[in-house]
Amino acid sequence: MIRPFALAVALVAGGAAAAQAPEPRVPAGMQWLYGSGEGGAATIQAYRAFRDHVLARSRHRPRDSVVLADGATLAAPRFIPCGRRPPAVVLDVDETALQNLGYEYDDAGHPGRPYDQERWNRWERTGANAVAPTPGAVAALQAIRRAGVTVIFNSNRLAAAAAENEAAIESAGLGPARHGRTLYLQGDAAPGSAKDPRRAAISARYCVIAMAGDQLGDFSDLFNARDLAVPDRRRAATGGRIAALWGNGWFVLPNPVYGSGLRGTIDEVFPAGRRWTDPQEGNR
Amino acid sequence: MIRPFALAVALVAGGAAAAQAPEPRVPAGMQWLYGSGEGGAATIQAYRAFRDHVLARSRHRPRDSVVLADGATLAAPRFIPCGRRPPAVVLDVDETALQNLGYEYDDAGHPGRPYDQERWNRWERTGANAVAPTPGAVAALQAIRRAGVTVIFNSNRLAAAAAENEAAIESAGLGPARHGRTLYLQGDAAPGSAKDPRRAAISARYCVIAMAGDQLGDFSDLFNARDLAVPDRRRAATGGRIAALWGNGWFVLPNPVYGSGLRGTIDEVFPAGRRWTDPQEGNR
Repeated sequence: MIRPFALAVALVAGGAAAAQAPEPRVPAGMQWLYGSGEGGAATIQAYRAFRDHVLARSRHRPRDSVVLADGATLAAPRFIPCGRRPPAVVLDVDETALQNLGYEYDDAGHPGRPYDQERWNRWERTGANAVAPTPGAVAALQAIRRAGVTVIFNSNRLAAAAAENEAAIESAGLGPARHGRTLYLQGDAAPGSAKDPRRAAISARYCVIAMAGDQLGDFSDLFNARDLAVPDRRRAATGGRIAALWGNGWFVLPNPVYGSGLRGTIDEVFPAGRRWTDPQEGNR
Repeated sequence: MIRPFALAVALVAGGAAAAQAPEPRVPAGMQWLYGSGEGGAATIQAYRAFRDHVLARSRHRPRDSVVLADGATLAAPRFIPCGRRPPAVVLDVDETALQNLGYEYDDAGHPGRPYDQERWNRWERTGANAVAPTPGAVAALQAIRRAGVTVIFNSNRLAAAAAENEAAIESAGLGPARHGRTLYLQGDAAPGSAKDPRRAAISARYCVIAMAGDQLGDFSDLFNARDLAVPDRRRAATGGRIAALWGNGWFVLPNPVYGSGLRGTIDEVFPAGRRWTDPQEGNR
């Protein structure tokens, strides 16, 4: 079988030989997240923890939400109080509630091609039938809604493509999603990709008892501070009082395919005190 | 600063220019798992779920363990009964309880270098001080031991390096680990890398109430059947009665760096019904 992208290459090249070029190797992160039993097990596990936590919290209304209050810091987190507002959960969409299989399939077929925002925008507008729910998500969101908790999506997809984005979420079996009510998109509440203004708008109406996302910005924009070096950002997420939130109000989905977790030089990723050099290397 | 591997390259090349070559790009999986806040959050979350599950189960002794019984299949799982044996948990070591930072640092400095079992063996013998505990593991194992549950490691590290492997686990703060009692290594119970015989040996003495691993073979060797194609293996892990075990007796740690989850062609990773081709691609 000739895949569409291989065919396109062959047509551009004007010959048949290119169609028989070896298949591009799928990046390891895609193999793990989209293709492996390990990756599927990891997201099922995350959604089980999310569901169990939400069902337990919905029975005993908490005093505070899990949304950081204005003026809070990562070192000294404080949370928006719930008052008497009804319970909700807030989830990111891409690689949290759904997996962009069609887009990543196209990307895997073009190794080395840089990210293109316009291409992503075309995907938002035409890809609704080529997504899949993240394993574990559909059953968890159904159970959460049955418990009377509202499910709200907070995504950086475009408000200009709201109808298509609602359709993508619903075609994956994750809906309902209604823009302005249960779906917040880029530009809602404030211009730009920061999600804190949208979390504040949601918190004005709901008590947010849990959040889920694949990027730290799905929990607080404080993690996206420009001066936060890679090792400091890891320490901020895994130390102090923030560490106690993971699996306990904040639920992270693994995403080794793209995003703010895929940064860092060798010196930033590997701490100075934990390095090793093969003692035989010089003898080869 | 000149890192050791860059220095080695410079010495071999006999010139200073090589020392100023651009740093190798760290593979995305390493950036995510070892360097990112997202990766650290994901393992903290997994260990919180593991600890909570174990503490709850240790209070109400279950009838069955979570180790598959002889003759069980993935489609029809059955479990070894507990009898009156004392409770234990079984964990893999590498990229489950500890992270091999030193080894992966060396690997990141040699892009494209193939895996070499002899180099890994040298790492086992000399790397004990260049590992780190997986974020979340130390506190979870401490709480589990305080509840009277024995922590047992089941690893494919070499029995011939038992003392060095005990030292690696203990230097990461995860011990005690004693070969033959709380540490099972490759070749124990039966020759080879299959872990089922070791799980059976552990189950003869203990009721295994939870397992943790980064590879599906840390739960059952049935996942390593040679004729199990990539999509079938994912279905086996995420469907049927096996799906209900993730986060509920079986706990998976994310590993997009190496292992049996990093397989699959484009056609295996991306299901036929979920593909997309950029409609603008032909116009460029």
